[in-house]
Amino acid sequence: SVNRNQSFSNRGMTLEEDINATNQYYLTHDICVIHKKPTPVQIVKVDYPKRSAAVIKEAYFKQASTTDYNGLYRGHYLDFEAKETRNKTSFPLHNFHEHQIKHMKDIVKHDGIAFVIIRFKAHEKTYFLDATKLFPIWDRQYLTAGRKSIPHQFIIDEGIEIPTHYPAIVDYIKVIDQLFF
Amino acid sequence: SVNRNQSFSNRGMTLEEDINATNQYYLTHDICVIHKKPTPVQIVKVDYPKRSAAVIKEAYFKQASTTDYNGLYRGHYLDFEAKETRNKTSFPLHNFHEHQIKHMKDIVKHDGIAFVIIRFKAHEKTYFLDATKLFPIWDRQYLTAGRKSIPHQFIIDEGIEIPTHYPAIVDYIKVIDQLFF
Ligand SMILES: [Mg+2]
Ligand SMILES: [Mg+2]
Repeated sequence: SVNRNQSFSNRGMTLEEDINATNQYYLTHDICVIHKKPTPVQIVKVDYPKRSAAVIKEAYFKQASTTDYNGLYRGHYLDFEAKETRNKTSFPLHNFHEHQIKHMKDIVKHDGIAFVIIRFKAHEKTYFLDATKLFPIWDRQYLTAGRKSIPHQFIIDEGIEIPTHYPAIVDYIKVIDQLFF
Repeated sequence: SVNRNQSFSNRGMTLEEDINATNQYYLTHDICVIHKKPTPVQIVKVDYPKRSAAVIKEAYFKQASTTDYNGLYRGHYLDFEAKETRNKTSFPLHNFHEHQIKHMKDIVKHDGIAFVIIRFKAHEKTYFLDATKLFPIWDRQYLTAGRKSIPHQFIIDEGIEIPTHYPAIVDYIKVIDQLFF
């Protein structure tokens, strides 16, 4: 029941699924080593039934202290967060958490490469935005006149559209090559 | 009820707790940015009670696809696994998983720094062993005459004892400095 008329970026796959598939492709083809971190969970109660695997019976989602993805490309440390929005004209800043921004600032300070991948689902466009372009917008939101979102036009102007093609569905390494090598 | 006669490395803290405290110290003092990855969990059932946080009611532990720790130090990617043993004369290889070794080989191939931290609890000693010294031993275990463990003496000879002092309880960055900078 695959709809063959669906465009590739409109298959109902989430950005996270697309990035995971891309990372798997990168790993298999020895391009880079990037993994998604597991969802952090506070485990409260575990049952250990005889002759079968331990079952977690009570646990809670914890807020992540870092971004979702990190790893290694040509000797360089990469670190990023990926977010998608249904909004058409801007990306709301509340999609990020303060400690994720703090973490990306730490990464930049220690000479790593930090960035965000932002998908506008309505436009079927996925962008790379260097974290150093995000920080001033993030910090400014707390000022009286500060915007609480990143205009789509800013991301078009200051970011780079990520090429989308099979099998590197979100081919962000192409952008890294362009910017850093 | 703190026993003041207990030696520092014998406080009943696990190696993981000691490394987490060290990483927190490193982060606070802007030395490096190393985080433990969350325990990977396969979530099966979640309840969403009204007016309170989502509760995971059924989940299972998954095997990690990478090592437990990674991060960034002076622009270099670091990646390591930490293990402790009660054994006195050798460290059993079954403490590592095949995919962790594969992951560390990937890291070395892409010019990252991969290593293991091994604590012999009986000796109150914690060692740094470069992953490249582990790989041949790991691969050899599958040969007929291959050992299934790393002799303590090999780790003494080929590894480096990690200095243990408050507040950098497992001060592995000192070893990194010595070997790579
Ligand atoms: Mg996230
Ligand atoms: Mg582990």
